[in-house]
Amino acid sequence: MTEEIITLDYGSGGGKTAELIEELFLPAFHNDTLNRLGDGAVVNLSGALAFSTDSFVVSPLFFPGGDIGKLAVCGTVNDLAMCGAEPKVLSLSLLIEEGFPVEQLRRVAASIAAAAEEAGVEIVTGDTKVVERGKGDGLYVNTSGIGTVIYPGLSPDKITPGDAVILSGTMGDHGATVMMAREGLAENSPLRSDCRPLHRLAKAALDCGGVRVLRDPTRGGVATTLNEFTQNRPFSMELEEEALPVAPAVQAACDLLGLDALYCANEGKLLAVVAKERSSAVLEALRHTPGGEDSALIGQVTQRAPGKVLYHTALGGCRVLARLAGAQLPRIC
Amino acid sequence: MTEEIITLDYGSGGGKTAELIEELFLPAFHNDTLNRLGDGAVVNLSGALAFSTDSFVVSPLFFPGGDIGKLAVCGTVNDLAMCGAEPKVLSLSLLIEEGFPVEQLRRVAASIAAAAEEAGVEIVTGDTKVVERGKGDGLYVNTSGIGTVIYPGLSPDKITPGDAVILSGTMGDHGATVMMAREGLAENSPLRSDCRPLHRLAKAALDCGGVRVLRDPTRGGVATTLNEFTQNRPFSMELEEEALPVAPAVQAACDLLGLDALYCANEGKLLAVVAKERSSAVLEALRHTPGGEDSALIGQVTQRAPGKVLYHTALGGCRVLARLAGAQLPRIC
Repeated sequence: MTEEIITLDYGSGGGKTAELIEELFLPAFHNDTLNRLGDGAVVNLSGALAFSTDSFVVSPLFFPGGDIGKLAVCGTVNDLAMCGAEPKVLSLSLLIEEGFPVEQLRRVAASIAAAAEEAGVEIVTGDTKVVERGKGDGLYVNTSGIGTVIYPGLSPDKITPGDAVILSGTMGDHGATVMMAREGLAENSPLRSDCRPLHRLAKAALDCGGVRVLRDPTRGGVATTLNEFTQNRPFSMELEEEALPVAPAVQAACDLLGLDALYCANEGKLLAVVAKERSSAVLEALRHTPGGEDSALIGQVTQRAPGKVLYHTALGGCRVLARLAGAQLPRIC
Repeated sequence: MTEEIITLDYGSGGGKTAELIEELFLPAFHNDTLNRLGDGAVVNLSGALAFSTDSFVVSPLFFPGGDIGKLAVCGTVNDLAMCGAEPKVLSLSLLIEEGFPVEQLRRVAASIAAAAEEAGVEIVTGDTKVVERGKGDGLYVNTSGIGTVIYPGLSPDKITPGDAVILSGTMGDHGATVMMAREGLAENSPLRSDCRPLHRLAKAALDCGGVRVLRDPTRGGVATTLNEFTQNRPFSMELEEEALPVAPAVQAACDLLGLDALYCANEGKLLAVVAKERSSAVLEALRHTPGGEDSALIGQVTQRAPGKVLYHTALGGCRVLARLAGAQLPRIC
């Protein structure tokens, strides 16, 4: 690379764009499909395919446990895994602000490559745009992905009263870490984003049978995802405060910032709603899979208050866990 | 919608995000796959698939002949069509700046829906993020898409000396229009972006046989795409200035702005390199397809200066048409 920062020329589609692709991206992501560099990639896949897209605008770009690159790969890989699919290929589109350091771009590219390798996916096609200083915020990343559906038919419509609600670990680690990092308070704390690919945990749960639906509770957290499940459906979900796993550092960060871990983003956890008779098997399978050691049964599906999520506090109270209208935490992913 | 402008709450993943999706996007793009609203869409496709992504940062967002929404659909549809594929499904990811008018978002959504219908594709999955005022520029759009490959094996590696180079119409209409619109000079001129889906033109050419490669000359224009074909390959391309179609208004705009139409972006033209014996058939087929009426044979593949694009001027001179290093026109798409 002939420059130390990204200039508008790198988004021109001309020689500078080619330099960026050939000297930075191809070496990082090298695979035969990407190397062909046509207008698109050609891949061989068949049958029911999952297709998902996500743009990432997290601030700061680098945080304990990850960065925007790892987040962008895991985010789309996880959306595919939640569809019951094996993630196969990703596209990568970068929106870079003029003046962004090439060195940081290299770090993000390395992080994307590492996360893709861990998740077993290839970056097969991409795009780069550069916008003027003040028209972006360093770097925004979009990934889209395709996976082959191995376990068809997952849907919240399959949820039945009596089902168990399982969470694959502690809540709110990503959201709390990013918020504290934004205040410069995360470096010397034990806080780390939980950002990780969930394809192995999803497979472990699905192989047990009885899984009605999977979802990764990102923006809006566990409370929002459960509300999406119950809304306009003929069942309620009831959670037990004491059953909800929260890391002490996350609880402390939430107390400090006035946040609720139930609404904090996760980037490496899945929620599984499972037929009661398979719930122990799913819980055991998750606990024996890396990243799922702290999996917990957090609640049940009931008919007590259809459409709502009920929350039983440790003190014996019960309240409705509302869906948030707006932003508890902007730009968390 | 309860607000007239987009606030950060609309990107929260909570109730406001749901409102945006349910009241604005679902009615605009309604289809069964999108309506299911999981983490991703499940689609049934088989065999060789083309997969492409593109982010759009055009300024201004609205210009004669199109807007960022139409551009985003056509851009990805065209990348798929250039792979010899029939475009099938698109993802849509919006990156909205806080304060963006809901009314403009509605216009863009309507434009996306109309372009998708014309191109025969469905928007099956999406994502919305909102960034703070001053961290974006109104609206950025990413589309990714999947198509089924109908005509496999297109590649610049297939190009052979003697082949014909065909362009499906006039050069530089999109680039010249956007630049003039940025200066406020396009409204009362005959300039219009050529933005359109190219799937029918691609099919018309490919059905004739003999097509080596297709490419839509967007950023960097015809000159840049032809340089991508010749670079490090054992042939040259020779163009005739007099054979290159340029609309008078585009030529006037280029003269005014000091631009060269050969390097100006097109968003509704394709370049086809075709075996000589099929070139008349391809030219006729393109001319009889809407949007291809002004198709022209613009040059030949030769062995005169391998790796280079040569340009024969109307006055009898000959020069090398270089690849631009950087930006002639930033943020044109």
